[in-house]
Amino acid sequence: MTTWLAKIHVTLKDAVVDPQGLTIQDALHQLHFDSVQRVRMGKYLEVTLDAPDAATAEERVTVMCTTLLANPVIERFNFTVSETMLA
Amino acid sequence: MTTWLAKIHVTLKDAVVDPQGLTIQDALHQLHFDSVQRVRMGKYLEVTLDAPDAATAEERVTVMCTTLLANPVIERFNFTVSETMLA
Repeated sequence: MTTWLAKIHVTLKDAVVDPQGLTIQDALHQLHFDSVQRVRMGKYLEVTLDAPDAATAEERVTVMCTTLLANPVIERFNFTVSETMLA
Repeated sequence: MTTWLAKIHVTLKDAVVDPQGLTIQDALHQLHFDSVQRVRMGKYLEVTLDAPDAATAEERVTVMCTTLLANPVIERFNFTVSETMLA
């Protein structure tokens, strides 16, 4: 059994309002970062899991994302899977 | 003036306890994802900004990260900057 590291990004779909991103954008403007045009906030997860091969690991991560990690109504996700040694 | 997209990852340092990651790990185990060994939770931000060149954009994003976006005591950050058209 090999150990895999999945690096998962969960981001809001473009049409969805992002209050957290807007708040950060306002804060950056107040700190005089006037060149900032737009901030979008997302989640980043690193999941370490066992699986016999990369395809199985990817399949498991996809199911995790659709059942728990992302809300498919308003969010999209993407990830990469690579072989790793557990820390 | 060119528009740049910075993709920023903010993650907890390895020695820092990650209660959010542990909660997600427990939830995945309860959903019978028994192969999951470890979950670490981080933040992912996309910042669109104007700057005359890539070096200036990188410098600005570094200052943003150290002053607002990351807590350098417990978090580390990394980012990439690429040319973009504003959506």
